[in-house]
Amino acid sequence: MEGHHLKRLQEKIIEEGLVLSDEILKVDNFLNHQIDPVLMKEIGLEFARRFREEQISKVLTIESSGIAPALMTALELGVPVVFARKKKSLTLTDAFYESKIFSFTKQEMNTVVVSRKLLTNKDRVLIIDDFLANGQAAEGLIEVVHMAGAQLAGIGIVIEKAFQNGGARLRKSGIRIESLAEITSLANGQITFK
Amino acid sequence: MEGHHLKRLQEKIIEEGLVLSDEILKVDNFLNHQIDPVLMKEIGLEFARRFREEQISKVLTIESSGIAPALMTALELGVPVVFARKKKSLTLTDAFYESKIFSFTKQEMNTVVVSRKLLTNKDRVLIIDDFLANGQAAEGLIEVVHMAGAQLAGIGIVIEKAFQNGGARLRKSGIRIESLAEITSLANGQITFK
Repeated sequence: MEGHHLKRLQEKIIEEGLVLSDEILKVDNFLNHQIDPVLMKEIGLEFARRFREEQISKVLTIESSGIAPALMTALELGVPVVFARKKKSLTLTDAFYESKIFSFTKQEMNTVVVSRKLLTNKDRVLIIDDFLANGQAAEGLIEVVHMAGAQLAGIGIVIEKAFQNGGARLRKSGIRIESLAEITSLANGQITFK
Repeated sequence: MEGHHLKRLQEKIIEEGLVLSDEILKVDNFLNHQIDPVLMKEIGLEFARRFREEQISKVLTIESSGIAPALMTALELGVPVVFARKKKSLTLTDAFYESKIFSFTKQEMNTVVVSRKLLTNKDRVLIIDDFLANGQAAEGLIEVVHMAGAQLAGIGIVIEKAFQNGGARLRKSGIRIESLAEITSLANGQITFK
Protein backbone atom coordinates (compact mmCIF):
# COMPACT_ATOMS: atom_id res chain seq x y z
CA MET A 1 0.00 0.00 0.00
CA GLU A 2 2.64 2.47 1.12
CA GLY A 3 5.01 1.39 -1.60
CA HIS A 4 2.27 1.73 -4.20
CA HIS A 5 1.61 5.37 -3.43
CA LEU A 6 5.22 6.36 -3.12
CA LYS A 7 5.91 4.62 -6.39
CA ARG A 8 3.24 6.48 -8.37
CA LEU A 9 4.38 9.81 -6.98
CA GLN A 10 8.03 8.96 -7.63
CA GLU A 11 7.19 8.04 -11.21
CA LYS A 12 5.41 11.35 -11.71
CA ILE A 13 8.39 13.23 -10.26
CA ILE A 14 10.79 11.38 -12.55
CA GLU A 15 8.59 11.71 -15.65
CA GLU A 16 7.40 15.28 -15.23
CA GLY A 17 9.62 17.01 -12.66
CA LEU A 18 12.11 19.57 -13.96
CA VAL A 19 15.41 20.00 -12.14
CA LEU A 20 16.13 23.73 -12.41
CA SER A 21 19.21 23.70 -10.21
CA ASP A 22 20.86 21.58 -7.51
CA GLU A 23 18.23 22.91 -5.12
CA ILE A 24 15.09 23.55 -7.16
CA LEU A 25 12.68 20.94 -8.51
CA LYS A 26 9.74 22.19 -10.55
CA VAL A 27 6.61 20.06 -10.44
CA ASP A 28 4.23 22.49 -12.11
CA ASN A 29 2.74 19.69 -14.20
CA PHE A 30 0.95 17.88 -11.38
CA LEU A 31 1.30 19.76 -8.09
CA ASN A 32 2.10 23.49 -8.17
CA HIS A 33 0.28 24.90 -11.18
CA GLN A 34 -1.49 22.03 -12.90
CA ILE A 35 -2.87 19.47 -10.46
CA ASP A 36 -3.41 15.77 -11.13
CA PRO A 37 -6.62 15.08 -9.19
CA VAL A 38 -6.22 11.29 -9.19
CA LEU A 39 -2.72 11.54 -7.77
CA MET A 40 -3.97 14.05 -5.17
CA LYS A 41 -6.69 11.63 -4.14
CA GLU A 42 -4.12 8.87 -3.65
CA ILE A 43 -1.90 11.25 -1.69
CA GLY A 44 -4.88 12.12 0.53
CA LEU A 45 -5.67 8.45 1.08
CA GLU A 46 -2.07 7.73 2.02
CA PHE A 47 -1.77 10.62 4.51
CA ALA A 48 -5.12 9.62 6.01
CA ARG A 49 -3.91 6.03 6.35
CA ARG A 50 -0.72 7.11 8.11
CA PHE A 51 -2.45 9.51 10.52
CA ARG A 52 -5.77 7.63 10.92
CA GLU A 53 -5.16 6.79 14.61
CA GLU A 54 -4.14 10.32 15.57
CA GLN A 55 -7.64 11.69 16.19
CA ILE A 56 -7.07 14.66 13.91
CA SER A 57 -9.73 17.37 14.20
CA LYS A 58 -8.33 19.74 11.61
CA VAL A 59 -5.92 19.76 8.67
CA LEU A 60 -3.84 22.93 8.33
CA THR A 61 -1.99 24.02 5.21
CA ILE A 62 -0.86 27.18 3.42
CA GLU A 63 -2.06 28.66 0.15
CA SER A 64 -1.85 27.81 -2.65
CA SER A 65 -0.06 24.55 -3.47
CA GLY A 66 -0.82 22.93 -0.13
CA ILE A 67 -4.57 23.16 -0.65
CA ALA A 68 -5.03 20.19 -3.02
CA PRO A 69 -3.23 17.50 -0.98
CA ALA A 70 -4.63 18.95 2.27
CA LEU A 71 -8.20 18.91 0.94
CA MET A 72 -7.97 15.30 -0.17
CA THR A 73 -6.49 14.28 3.18
CA ALA A 74 -9.19 16.15 5.09
CA LEU A 75 -11.92 14.58 2.97
CA GLU A 76 -10.58 11.14 3.82
CA LEU A 77 -10.21 11.93 7.54
CA GLY A 78 -13.65 13.54 7.67
CA VAL A 79 -12.44 16.87 9.10
CA PRO A 80 -12.24 20.47 7.81
CA VAL A 81 -9.11 21.95 6.28
CA VAL A 82 -7.88 25.47 7.01
CA PHE A 83 -5.43 27.18 4.70
CA ALA A 84 -3.22 29.92 6.11
CA ARG A 85 -3.40 33.00 3.93
CA LYS A 86 -0.51 35.14 2.82
CA LYS A 87 -1.06 38.79 3.60
CA LYS A 88 1.00 41.77 2.65
CA SER A 89 -0.61 44.16 5.07
CA LEU A 90 -2.87 43.46 7.98
CA THR A 91 -5.56 45.66 9.39
CA LEU A 92 -7.26 43.25 11.79
CA THR A 93 -4.34 41.53 13.49
CA ASP A 94 -6.23 40.79 16.69
CA ALA A 95 -8.58 38.41 14.89
CA PHE A 96 -5.72 36.37 13.44
CA TYR A 97 -2.80 34.23 14.46
CA GLU A 98 0.09 35.60 12.48
CA SER A 99 3.47 34.19 11.55
CA LYS A 100 6.27 35.35 9.31
CA ILE A 101 7.68 32.88 6.81
CA PHE A 102 10.76 33.45 4.70
CA SER A 103 10.76 31.82 1.28
CA PHE A 104 14.26 30.89 0.12
CA THR A 105 12.94 30.06 -3.35
CA LYS A 106 11.32 33.44 -3.83
CA GLN A 107 13.67 35.33 -1.48
CA GLU A 108 10.78 37.09 0.19
CA MET A 109 9.14 37.32 3.58
CA ASN A 110 5.45 36.45 3.79
CA THR A 111 3.12 37.09 6.66
CA VAL A 112 0.63 34.25 6.96
CA VAL A 113 -2.55 34.48 8.97
CA VAL A 114 -5.15 32.09 10.33
CA SER A 115 -8.42 33.30 11.76
CA ARG A 116 -8.58 32.71 15.52
CA LYS A 117 -12.04 31.26 15.31
CA LEU A 118 -10.85 28.48 12.97
CA LEU A 119 -8.20 27.01 15.27
CA THR A 120 -8.60 26.55 19.02
CA ASN A 121 -7.06 24.72 21.98
CA LYS A 122 -9.54 21.89 21.36
CA ASP A 123 -7.93 21.06 18.02
CA ARG A 124 -5.54 18.27 17.18
CA VAL A 125 -3.88 19.39 13.99
CA LEU A 126 -2.28 17.65 11.02
CA ILE A 127 -0.17 20.01 8.92
CA ILE A 128 0.00 19.12 5.20
CA ASP A 129 2.23 20.84 2.65
CA ASP A 130 3.52 20.20 -0.85
CA PHE A 131 7.22 20.67 -0.12
CA LEU A 132 9.57 20.52 2.85
CA ALA A 133 13.01 22.02 2.27
CA ASN A 134 14.40 24.50 4.77
CA GLY A 135 11.36 24.06 6.95
CA GLN A 136 10.34 27.72 7.11
CA ALA A 137 6.74 27.19 6.02
CA ALA A 138 6.29 24.23 8.36
CA GLU A 139 7.71 26.22 11.28
CA GLY A 140 5.38 29.11 10.53
CA LEU A 141 2.40 26.76 10.61
CA ILE A 142 3.68 25.09 13.81
CA GLU A 143 3.89 28.54 15.38
CA VAL A 144 0.26 29.15 14.46
CA VAL A 145 -0.74 25.81 16.03
CA HIS A 146 1.07 26.77 19.23
CA MET A 147 -0.46 30.25 19.28
CA ALA A 148 -3.89 28.61 19.15
CA GLY A 149 -2.97 26.31 22.05
CA ALA A 150 -3.80 23.40 19.76
CA GLN A 151 -1.97 20.07 19.65
CA LEU A 152 0.23 19.15 16.70
CA ALA A 153 -0.27 15.52 15.66
CA GLY A 154 2.29 15.60 12.87
CA ILE A 155 3.22 16.85 9.44
CA GLY A 156 2.52 15.25 6.07
CA ILE A 157 4.74 16.32 3.17
CA VAL A 158 4.29 15.39 -0.47
CA ILE A 159 7.93 15.97 -1.51
CA GLU A 160 10.76 16.38 0.97
CA LYS A 161 14.08 17.73 -0.21
CA ALA A 162 16.00 15.71 2.34
CA PHE A 163 19.31 17.34 1.36
CA GLN A 164 18.09 20.55 2.95
CA ASN A 165 17.91 20.79 6.70
CA GLY A 166 14.24 21.36 7.54
CA GLY A 167 13.18 17.74 7.93
CA ALA A 168 16.13 16.75 10.10
CA ARG A 169 15.69 19.77 12.38
CA LEU A 170 11.95 19.23 12.82
CA ARG A 171 12.30 15.48 13.47
CA LYS A 172 15.02 16.22 16.03
CA SER A 173 12.53 18.40 17.89
CA GLY A 174 10.27 15.33 18.21
CA ILE A 175 7.74 16.10 15.50
CA ARG A 176 6.41 13.20 13.45
CA ILE A 177 6.95 13.91 9.76
CA GLU A 178 5.64 11.66 7.01
CA SER A 179 7.00 12.41 3.54
CA LEU A 180 5.63 10.57 0.53
CA ALA A 181 8.73 11.19 -1.57
CA GLU A 182 12.16 11.96 -0.15
CA ILE A 183 14.72 13.39 -2.52
CA THR A 184 18.32 13.11 -1.35
CA SER A 185 19.92 14.96 -4.25
CA LEU A 186 19.21 17.04 -7.34
CA ALA A 187 22.90 17.30 -8.29
CA ASN A 188 23.81 17.19 -12.01
CA GLY A 189 20.17 17.41 -13.05
CA GLN A 190 19.52 13.95 -11.55
CA ILE A 191 16.71 13.22 -9.09
CA THR A 192 17.85 10.77 -6.42
CA PHE A 193 15.35 9.27 -3.99
CA LYS A 194 16.08 7.97 -0.53
CA MET B 1 -30.31 16.02 -7.45
CA GLU B 2 -29.82 19.62 -8.46
CA GLY B 3 -32.14 20.84 -5.73
CA HIS B 4 -30.33 18.70 -3.17
CA HIS B 5 -26.96 20.28 -3.84
CA LEU B 6 -28.20 23.79 -4.06
CA LYS B 7 -30.06 23.26 -0.82
CA ARG B 8 -27.05 22.06 1.15
CA LEU B 9 -24.93 24.95 -0.12
CA GLN B 10 -27.73 27.44 0.57
CA GLU B 11 -28.08 26.10 4.10
CA LYS B 12 -24.35 26.53 4.67
CA ILE B 13 -24.48 30.08 3.35
CA ILE B 14 -27.41 30.91 5.62
CA GLU B 15 -25.94 29.20 8.68
CA GLU B 16 -22.33 30.28 8.35
CA GLY B 17 -22.15 33.18 5.90
CA LEU B 18 -21.49 36.63 7.31
CA VAL B 19 -22.99 39.65 5.57
CA LEU B 20 -20.34 42.35 5.96
CA SER B 21 -22.10 44.94 3.80
CA ASP B 22 -24.74 45.17 1.07
CA GLU B 23 -22.10 43.83 -1.30
CA ILE B 24 -19.81 41.57 0.71
CA LEU B 25 -20.60 38.06 1.93
CA LYS B 26 -17.92 36.31 3.96
CA VAL B 27 -17.87 32.51 3.72
CA ASP B 28 -14.54 31.91 5.43
CA ASN B 29 -16.01 29.03 7.40
CA PHE B 30 -16.41 26.62 4.50
CA LEU B 31 -15.02 28.08 1.28
CA ASN B 32 -12.44 30.88 1.49
CA HIS B 33 -10.28 30.08 4.52
CA GLN B 34 -11.65 26.93 6.11
CA ILE B 35 -12.92 24.41 3.56
CA ASP B 36 -15.64 21.84 4.10
CA PRO B 37 -14.33 18.86 2.06
CA VAL B 38 -17.68 17.03 1.96
CA LEU B 39 -19.46 20.10 0.61
CA MET B 40 -16.64 20.59 -1.93
CA LYS B 41 -17.04 17.00 -3.06
CA GLU B 42 -20.77 17.56 -3.60
CA ILE B 43 -20.06 20.79 -5.47
CA GLY B 44 -17.60 18.92 -7.70
CA LEU B 45 -20.16 16.19 -8.37
CA GLU B 46 -22.78 18.76 -9.29
CA PHE B 47 -20.54 20.74 -11.68
CA ALA B 48 -19.43 17.46 -13.27
CA ARG B 49 -23.06 16.41 -13.70
CA ARG B 50 -23.96 19.71 -15.38
CA PHE B 51 -20.96 19.72 -17.74
CA ARG B 52 -20.60 15.96 -18.26
CA GLU B 53 -21.59 16.11 -21.95
CA GLU B 54 -19.25 18.98 -22.77
CA GLN B 55 -16.10 16.91 -23.41
CA ILE B 56 -14.04 19.01 -21.04
CA SER B 57 -10.28 18.38 -21.29
CA LYS B 58 -9.19 20.80 -18.57
CA VAL B 59 -10.60 22.69 -15.60
CA LEU B 60 -9.19 26.20 -15.12
CA THR B 61 -9.41 28.22 -11.93
CA ILE B 62 -7.50 30.92 -10.03
CA GLU B 63 -5.67 30.68 -6.74
CA SER B 64 -6.53 30.27 -3.94
CA SER B 65 -10.23 29.85 -3.22
CA GLY B 66 -11.08 28.39 -6.61
CA ILE B 67 -8.75 25.43 -6.15
CA ALA B 68 -10.95 23.30 -3.89
CA PRO B 69 -14.16 23.30 -5.99
CA ALA B 70 -12.11 23.07 -9.21
CA LEU B 71 -10.12 20.08 -7.94
CA MET B 72 -13.25 18.18 -6.94
CA THR B 73 -14.86 18.92 -10.31
CA ALA B 74 -11.74 17.83 -12.20
CA LEU B 75 -11.51 14.62 -10.18
CA GLU B 76 -15.09 13.79 -11.12
CA LEU B 77 -14.59 14.66 -14.81
CA GLY B 78 -11.29 12.77 -14.95
CA VAL B 79 -9.23 15.72 -16.24
CA PRO B 80 -6.41 17.89 -14.83
CA VAL B 81 -7.02 21.25 -13.19
CA VAL B 82 -4.82 24.31 -13.78
CA PHE B 83 -4.86 27.22 -11.39
CA ALA B 84 -3.85 30.64 -12.66
CA ARG B 85 -1.26 32.17 -10.38
CA LYS B 86 -1.18 35.74 -9.16
CA LYS B 87 2.12 37.41 -9.81
CA LYS B 88 3.37 40.78 -8.69
CA SER B 89 6.31 40.91 -11.04
CA LEU B 90 7.08 38.77 -14.00
CA THR B 91 10.43 37.84 -15.40
CA LEU B 92 9.44 35.15 -17.88
CA THR B 93 6.40 36.63 -19.62
CA ASP B 94 6.97 34.78 -22.88
CA ALA B 95 6.33 31.42 -21.24
CA PHE B 96 2.99 32.53 -19.82
CA TYR B 97 -0.42 33.72 -20.85
CA GLU B 98 -0.98 36.80 -18.77
CA SER B 99 -4.09 38.73 -17.85
CA LYS B 100 -4.78 41.64 -15.52
CA ILE B 101 -7.67 41.30 -13.08
CA PHE B 102 -9.00 44.08 -10.89
CA SER B 103 -10.41 43.02 -7.53
CA PHE B 104 -13.19 45.32 -6.34
CA THR B 105 -13.19 43.65 -2.91
CA LYS B 106 -9.49 44.24 -2.35
CA GLN B 107 -9.25 47.31 -4.60
CA GLU B 108 -6.12 46.00 -6.25
CA MET B 109 -4.92 44.91 -9.66
CA ASN B 110 -3.52 41.41 -9.97
CA THR B 111 -1.60 39.96 -12.86
CA VAL B 112 -2.50 36.31 -13.30
CA VAL B 113 -0.46 33.88 -15.35
CA VAL B 114 -0.90 30.44 -16.83
CA SER B 115 2.00 28.51 -18.28
CA ARG B 116 1.66 28.15 -22.07
CA LYS B 117 2.45 24.46 -21.97
CA LEU B 118 -0.55 23.78 -19.71
CA LEU B 119 -3.24 25.19 -21.99
CA THR B 120 -3.32 24.72 -25.77
CA ASN B 121 -5.64 25.03 -28.76
CA LYS B 122 -6.55 21.36 -28.27
CA ASP B 123 -8.22 22.09 -24.94
CA ARG B 124 -11.89 22.43 -24.15
CA VAL B 125 -11.98 24.32 -20.88
CA LEU B 126 -14.38 24.54 -17.95
CA ILE B 127 -13.69 27.56 -15.74
CA ILE B 128 -14.57 27.07 -12.06
CA ASP B 129 -14.49 29.79 -9.41
CA ASP B 130 -15.79 30.37 -5.91
CA PHE B 131 -17.53 33.71 -6.57
CA LEU B 132 -18.95 35.64 -9.49
CA ALA B 133 -19.70 39.29 -8.82
CA ASN B 134 -18.41 41.94 -11.21
CA GLY B 135 -16.98 39.25 -13.45
CA GLN B 136 -13.41 40.54 -13.51
CA ALA B 137 -11.81 37.24 -12.49
CA ALA B 138 -13.94 35.26 -14.95
CA GLU B 139 -13.07 37.65 -17.76
CA GLY B 140 -9.37 37.37 -16.94
CA LEU B 141 -9.59 33.59 -17.17
CA ILE B 142 -11.62 33.78 -20.39
CA GLU B 143 -8.90 35.99 -21.86
CA VAL B 144 -6.34 33.31 -20.98
CA VAL B 145 -8.48 30.63 -22.68
CA HIS B 146 -8.67 32.79 -25.81
CA MET B 147 -4.94 33.52 -25.76
CA ALA B 148 -4.32 29.77 -25.77
CA GLY B 149 -6.68 29.30 -28.71
CA ALA B 150 -8.64 26.89 -26.54
CA GLN B 151 -12.43 26.48 -26.50
CA LEU B 152 -14.47 27.65 -23.54
CA ALA B 153 -17.20 25.14 -22.64
CA GLY B 154 -18.64 27.18 -19.81
CA ILE B 155 -18.21 28.55 -16.31
CA GLY B 156 -19.18 26.95 -13.02
CA ILE B 157 -19.62 29.29 -10.05
CA VAL B 158 -20.18 28.27 -6.44
CA ILE B 159 -21.80 31.53 -5.32
CA GLU B 160 -23.04 34.17 -7.73
CA LYS B 161 -23.86 37.64 -6.46
CA ALA B 162 -26.59 38.15 -9.04
CA PHE B 163 -27.17 41.75 -7.96
CA GLN B 164 -23.80 42.64 -9.44
CA ASN B 165 -23.43 42.77 -13.19
CA GLY B 166 -20.85 40.09 -14.07
CA GLY B 167 -23.20 37.17 -14.60
CA ALA B 168 -25.67 39.10 -16.75
CA ARG B 169 -22.89 40.55 -18.94
CA LEU B 170 -21.20 37.17 -19.47
CA ARG B 171 -24.47 35.35 -20.24
CA LYS B 172 -25.37 38.08 -22.72
CA SER B 173 -22.14 37.33 -24.56
CA GLY B 174 -23.34 33.74 -25.01
CA ILE B 175 -21.30 32.02 -22.32
CA ARG B 176 -22.95 29.22 -20.39
CA ILE B 177 -22.74 29.93 -16.67
CA GLU B 178 -23.89 27.48 -14.02
CA SER B 179 -24.11 28.92 -10.51
CA LEU B 180 -24.88 26.64 -7.57
CA ALA B 181 -26.20 29.47 -5.40
CA GLU B 182 -27.51 32.77 -6.75
CA ILE B 183 -27.84 35.60 -4.29
CA THR B 184 -30.10 38.44 -5.41
CA SER B 185 -29.57 40.72 -2.43
CA LEU B 186 -27.52 41.22 0.72
CA ALA B 187 -29.42 44.35 1.74
CA ASN B 188 -30.10 44.93 5.44
CA GLY B 189 -27.87 42.04 6.44
CA GLN B 190 -30.29 39.58 4.82
CA ILE B 191 -29.23 36.93 2.31
CA THR B 192 -31.86 36.55 -0.42
CA PHE B 193 -31.60 33.73 -2.94
CA LYS B 194 -33.05 33.66 -6.44
